[in-house]
Amino acid sequence: MTENETDPVQEKDKEKDREKVRVWDDLLETAEDGDTAALTQLLDELGETERVHAFGRLEPEERGVVLAALPPMVAADLLEQVPDSHAAEAVEEMVPAEAAEIFDALESDERADLLAELDHASAEAILTEASPETVESARTLLQYPAESAGGLMITEFVAVPSDWTTRELITHLQENVERYADFPIQYVYALGSRGELAGVLPLRDLLLARRDRTLGSLMLQHPISIAATAPLAELFDLFDRYRFLGIPVVNELDHLVGVLLREDVDEARVEEVHADERKSRGIVGGEELRSMPLLTRSGRRLGWLSINIVLNVVAASVIAAYQDTLSAAIALAVFLPIISDMSGCSGNQAVAVSLRELTLGVVRPSEFLRVWWKEAVVGCINGVVLGLLIGVLAWLWKDNVTLGLVVGSALALNTLIAVSIGGMVPLGLRRFGFDPALASSPILTTVTDMCGFFLVLSLATISLSQLAGI
Amino acid sequence: MTENETDPVQEKDKEKDREKVRVWDDLLETAEDGDTAALTQLLDELGETERVHAFGRLEPEERGVVLAALPPMVAADLLEQVPDSHAAEAVEEMVPAEAAEIFDALESDERADLLAELDHASAEAILTEASPETVESARTLLQYPAESAGGLMITEFVAVPSDWTTRELITHLQENVERYADFPIQYVYALGSRGELAGVLPLRDLLLARRDRTLGSLMLQHPISIAATAPLAELFDLFDRYRFLGIPVVNELDHLVGVLLREDVDEARVEEVHADERKSRGIVGGEELRSMPLLTRSGRRLGWLSINIVLNVVAASVIAAYQDTLSAAIALAVFLPIISDMSGCSGNQAVAVSLRELTLGVVRPSEFLRVWWKEAVVGCINGVVLGLLIGVLAWLWKDNVTLGLVVGSALALNTLIAVSIGGMVPLGLRRFGFDPALASSPILTTVTDMCGFFLVLSLATISLSQLAGI
Repeated sequence: MTENETDPVQEKDKEKDREKVRVWDDLLETAEDGDTAALTQLLDELGETERVHAFGRLEPEERGVVLAALPPMVAADLLEQVPDSHAAEAVEEMVPAEAAEIFDALESDERADLLAELDHASAEAILTEASPETVESARTLLQYPAESAGGLMITEFVAVPSDWTTRELITHLQENVERYADFPIQYVYALGSRGELAGVLPLRDLLLARRDRTLGSLMLQHPISIAATAPLAELFDLFDRYRFLGIPVVNELDHLVGVLLREDVDEARVEEVHADERKSRGIVGGEELRSMPLLTRSGRRLGWLSINIVLNVVAASVIAAYQDTLSAAIALAVFLPIISDMSGCSGNQAVAVSLRELTLGVVRPSEFLRVWWKEAVVGCINGVVLGLLIGVLAWLWKDNVTLGLVVGSALALNTLIAVSIGGMVPLGLRRFGFDPALASSPILTTVTDMCGFFLVLSLATISLSQLAGI
Repeated sequence: MTENETDPVQEKDKEKDREKVRVWDDLLETAEDGDTAALTQLLDELGETERVHAFGRLEPEERGVVLAALPPMVAADLLEQVPDSHAAEAVEEMVPAEAAEIFDALESDERADLLAELDHASAEAILTEASPETVESARTLLQYPAESAGGLMITEFVAVPSDWTTRELITHLQENVERYADFPIQYVYALGSRGELAGVLPLRDLLLARRDRTLGSLMLQHPISIAATAPLAELFDLFDRYRFLGIPVVNELDHLVGVLLREDVDEARVEEVHADERKSRGIVGGEELRSMPLLTRSGRRLGWLSINIVLNVVAASVIAAYQDTLSAAIALAVFLPIISDMSGCSGNQAVAVSLRELTLGVVRPSEFLRVWWKEAVVGCINGVVLGLLIGVLAWLWKDNVTLGLVVGSALALNTLIAVSIGGMVPLGLRRFGFDPALASSPILTTVTDMCGFFLVLSLATISLSQLAGI
């Protein structure tokens, strides 16, 4: 990266300066002055990180002003870097004709994503003003769900009749250099007489081929293709199986409608893993950014919390049932949250390993018994260790062996239960078509809390004569 | 996917059959018979999912038998699909000369990963038997950490002097068709007189160029390159910034040592996100598979659990300090785990949003105040809603308004605290160079537990006269 080398100390100073001057105010002022060159340069100097951040700090209408003041190509590049929701809020504030120029400059898949994010009226107004190619490409992509081959593909590809010679193809490419300039071409697609996808030619084969050969004689016939309606899981499998950089996407007539690039599939995969992690932390039903309206953010979070509070009340009802035992041996109350939390920790480790093994394919969703056994042995060891730790602590604290025995054996047993449940729940959820990343933890913690509270309090009830008054 | 269409019902039946016959036993038997063709066909029929699963179910020495019975190319393909640890265990059981043949057939980056996973003696024994190209490529890659440009790159690239003409290059490619057959070539690299990287030629430019032009006159000069020692974060940034399919990797002399492919960087990124999710669930310090030795699995998990038990004891000590209040109003014990768990949920949502905003770059690690404010307003609303819910429930349960007020206002306040901490902790950890995915949750839950217990019990102490005896 010799080109972009900078002195880290100097960088740090610059960063501080920028914070002082609030670079987003600079952006807005330059845009309001209408100084396109200065604005382009300012954005360029910021670097991607600062650019995305500063753009996000502007209000939606201010973002619209900045976009309108930029050359459409630069504005398009900027929109491809910022989160879709920031981009959409800005575009909705723009004059449709100006927005349409930017849309013409966007890549087809980014364009479709952004259109899908816009309110219906804005999207239609922009498409009315956009170029016919933009409209056609957008309508093609928007037919398909965002998380399908058709939603992720691009429409920038080179497809020519299979009876052309290599020479004809090269002349065609040379004559259309400008049109194809931004196409990420790795393959040329050959079409049959009915317009159907007939074959694929890697660029390398073209380079080495004699120029009088027809594409039909050079191409790989019966190429692997994918239906535009295919869901994400199928795309992931396909790109795992083959090393292609792009796979042609066909409609029900076997006509080529787009090309699915490996990089876009990989990006969707990263996004899915991120979304799974957020779900496991309780951000479900929509991706939150703190720039979103307060009630949307609060409401979505509450949806998840209200399910959890019900589950918590159910679990805690076990404690309510043992109130007499508790009041006779109040020290037990100290250990209830410890046992609840530690069992959750142990169980979540087993959840993580099951999720990993499912992803890698080394476990089948039906192999409950095998997973249970593998978890049970770990649960026994770790249960004994943790039980001993907490048991000795309890014994020393109150100088009461029974308290140590009760608390220690409850934690030991509950660790075994927690890892068993934690290991098997993701398998069960996957097997019955539910999302294990989302539902594993709430099920796990509710069940292990109930079991944990029950174990401590029922063991204590049995040995109450030795515990009373502690 | 017309090629691979299968009847789903028939598929399901087949799956059941396979479970019955234990397909891994079949694999082993066929391998022991030495029937290479039958074994290759059997693996082929299984499909990737079943193949990875069946291989994992064999014991290490049995996996070695299967590998030895396969043609080296097929064995190499299989090793690239299964988890590295399964592959390494199998290879360690093989005769080094046989393993070396498979290593010669592996791609350079997969080979290096696998070598790094082997015990030192096995790795050296295999390299002694391997081809000189394999040894050189492996030694180059193994110089660099696995999570660096040098560790992720491949050594399969085409580099020729920049004073060659296009015609000379094409003749060279034609004469070496076999050698280059498996190279994923998208660019040709041009070298200067001192062997330094001088330029890059995309295949498309070569295709359109006249054949008497020198590469020096066609190539993109001063190409973006990356140092072999560059860490993952730098690779991710670079591939985000540029749309290249591959970026040349250079050593300190600016000599080309490999090519970093977008797909391998993407794969590393997916793996990092997965690893982060596992860390947040307490699988740290090594990726676990259930086929690993019991004590390794148990020991690694215990490392994490023992930190957590200390944190839990610290948090629970707050309860111990208020034992008198608790024994006077035992109903409070029911609400302690609820408040602990609900605050954890609310706080983890804020953690998730902060992690997302950090990833997208819309928040800077220094913007504590802004994040705190954005969280505080959500915390106020959600705190009031959750506090009302639990407060009314407590009031109705014991017909005691004070209990409702104490529990409800404690949960409301602690929700506010939890989202504030949850929002800010990932920023703080990132700012000071720690891993937010790993440490956010334990810090969050410990602090919110302490605050939650303190709030309930101190409020209850103040209003004890109205609570006594419930």
